[in-house]
Amino acid sequence: MSLERQILELAERARTASRVTGELGTPVKNAWLQRVAERLEAGREAILEANARDMREAEAAGVSKPLVNRLALSESKWRDMIQGVRDVAHLEDPVGEISEMRVRPNGLRVGRMRIPLGVVAMIYESRPNVTVDAAVLCVKAGNAVILRGGSEAIHSNRALGEELRAAAHDVGLPEDAVVVVPTTDRAAIDVMLQADRFIDLIIPRGGPGLIRKVQRESRIPVIAHDKGVCHVYIDASADAEMARRIAIDSKLRQMALCNGLETILCHREAAHTALPHVLKGLHEEGVEIRGCPVTCEVFGGTRPASDEDWVAEYLAPIVAVRVVDGLDAAIEHVRDYGSEHTDIIVTNNYASSQEWLRRLHSSVVGVNCSTAFSDGFRLGLGAEIGVSTSKLHAFGPMGLEGLTTRKFVLYGDGQLGE
Amino acid sequence: MSLERQILELAERARTASRVTGELGTPVKNAWLQRVAERLEAGREAILEANARDMREAEAAGVSKPLVNRLALSESKWRDMIQGVRDVAHLEDPVGEISEMRVRPNGLRVGRMRIPLGVVAMIYESRPNVTVDAAVLCVKAGNAVILRGGSEAIHSNRALGEELRAAAHDVGLPEDAVVVVPTTDRAAIDVMLQADRFIDLIIPRGGPGLIRKVQRESRIPVIAHDKGVCHVYIDASADAEMARRIAIDSKLRQMALCNGLETILCHREAAHTALPHVLKGLHEEGVEIRGCPVTCEVFGGTRPASDEDWVAEYLAPIVAVRVVDGLDAAIEHVRDYGSEHTDIIVTNNYASSQEWLRRLHSSVVGVNCSTAFSDGFRLGLGAEIGVSTSKLHAFGPMGLEGLTTRKFVLYGDGQLGE
Repeated sequence: MSLERQILELAERARTASRVTGELGTPVKNAWLQRVAERLEAGREAILEANARDMREAEAAGVSKPLVNRLALSESKWRDMIQGVRDVAHLEDPVGEISEMRVRPNGLRVGRMRIPLGVVAMIYESRPNVTVDAAVLCVKAGNAVILRGGSEAIHSNRALGEELRAAAHDVGLPEDAVVVVPTTDRAAIDVMLQADRFIDLIIPRGGPGLIRKVQRESRIPVIAHDKGVCHVYIDASADAEMARRIAIDSKLRQMALCNGLETILCHREAAHTALPHVLKGLHEEGVEIRGCPVTCEVFGGTRPASDEDWVAEYLAPIVAVRVVDGLDAAIEHVRDYGSEHTDIIVTNNYASSQEWLRRLHSSVVGVNCSTAFSDGFRLGLGAEIGVSTSKLHAFGPMGLEGLTTRKFVLYGDGQLGE
Repeated sequence: MSLERQILELAERARTASRVTGELGTPVKNAWLQRVAERLEAGREAILEANARDMREAEAAGVSKPLVNRLALSESKWRDMIQGVRDVAHLEDPVGEISEMRVRPNGLRVGRMRIPLGVVAMIYESRPNVTVDAAVLCVKAGNAVILRGGSEAIHSNRALGEELRAAAHDVGLPEDAVVVVPTTDRAAIDVMLQADRFIDLIIPRGGPGLIRKVQRESRIPVIAHDKGVCHVYIDASADAEMARRIAIDSKLRQMALCNGLETILCHREAAHTALPHVLKGLHEEGVEIRGCPVTCEVFGGTRPASDEDWVAEYLAPIVAVRVVDGLDAAIEHVRDYGSEHTDIIVTNNYASSQEWLRRLHSSVVGVNCSTAFSDGFRLGLGAEIGVSTSKLHAFGPMGLEGLTTRKFVLYGDGQLGE
């Protein structure tokens, strides 16, 4: 069978399964989640063996050390993964919820009912725990899911997929509610991107190359999880110590994530007061400072920043720093160089705080808090399939709700148009 | 200047204007709407002259009579168009609304603020009134808009666009909030579909060829307004007279629209009772009946239906009719042959009504009412940019809200991640 036929057949099976998953009651879905957790724990040895094989093969193929580490299902990742499955069982089922119910003048009652999207395809890299995280969220939202992980994680993903499917079988769900693409052939992605008859949404998570490719070639709607060039702006009225703590937390809490701080902007009036205090704190934590001329002046040892620094997503202990004339200039900088991801102001000025929240159209804008809050768990969504940088449908941290849509439901007693 | 550069320059100007429209207060937007209505009325003569020219040229080019009629800015279309502009001024401004405000355990307040999408591009055919309808909705929602209408309406669209832009100038809005693509060269569409740096959303409205092309080639998110194969299912318990009135209204109220009835399904137990009554009513109104064998049996003069009839969007006085074994079979038929647009059950059975609403995932599902309610105005959205057949972001009738998205807004007092 050709690769194309093989992939299309898998996708069609997911489509068929989605008709069933879309009608499942909450107890069945939760029973599946429970069973998934049990099965993963029971199958742990075999899964970790498959994972070790992926890591050995990656090392042998000369894959870089950090990438090999991302592959690893470490003790803590394993624990988080299992806990994640159990947590999703406790989340409210979004499917079937009716909102915005209204009565029209003619007596027709109109509401909007939340429904699954159908078939969701995830295309991702490295981390095999995404296989489980994504599958449980997609199915809890009533969808079938097609998982295409990185080729270097193929054995781990297959082993995890087997347990997800076996758990489905155990509780009477169609196994094809979870489809793991069994091949590492990259051409499989090309086939998926064209399979608009069977797939309703594609979510790419990975490097810019993968995301660009998917956005360029997909016939299917895409919600991209792209890079974050996140800013903290220190306003003239900022509390220096608060700014320091927020900058350090934003930069260092989870440096490799898209919500990490990359550029600090500072009001000219705070350049000699709050700014050195903030930069001293970062410097002491081992963060390299790359700054505009004024920054170089006020903080010794700063390396001059180039234009490339303003658009850099370092994901590393480096921060770019620019002193600006005020709020307007800060907003303009973020619009010109930012990625509409997460942008925070530190201020004690009411007008500045409101303007920042209103005028910047990034997916997360905030006052006096860490960029780390650009996260589905910390925002209280209960779960996170990723942080969408696509403006449509779901913008920013995306939980269960983003994996559903709404239809109109009409309750009439004979109404005709007029 | 090459066509590509010309179109990209227009798109970039719209992008620049969108930064301004995204920050406009409601009074300024409403002043623009008011001024648009005044300017259109003052410029009526010149616009109708341009419209007459389009019609003359279309006739000379051998365009079919119905298509030429769709071009016409008739007395009633003109009145509706002007009234539509004034109505949009009275709609609540969606921009800036904060919803789902919650306090996290650490005191961080998290809400979601509605914001414009940025730049919306409409690609449509024939009807020049869409130029005005789309522009006023997009700008009221804080967006800039790029309008690419049918080549046969180019003079009308240019004339309308001039007034929209002049009104912007009058009230201090950037004229490029409304950009009318000045060329009829179809290659302009190709350039637009690739201009993801400047355009946030493409809305195609038109024939299946246009919609497929846009979905296939666009790098930009697409919300398609595609065809509707809408069903009315007559359940065993249906009131025969109600079913008759609903079928006639659904078929004949606005036959050329996507929400028109195309296929009637009927429970076997109603095949000899309600069904003949319904079909007699339709037949008396001049509707041709194409039916399954049972239908042919119970209603004389029925033409046998072929498989093609089940997927047909007639937009004409024809209806396909099929007798089915019951609710499950009706749902299966709709899933197999329908277009997930608008599907109505006529029933007096509680369980059937709930199952229909719950299990069918069309954009509009209803009980005991006409398919004509699949319409933004009749559903109470206040306006309609179209009926989305795309499941993501906006599914079904799409008003102002569908032209916006939401960002997270965070109100902190120094919170760090934990």
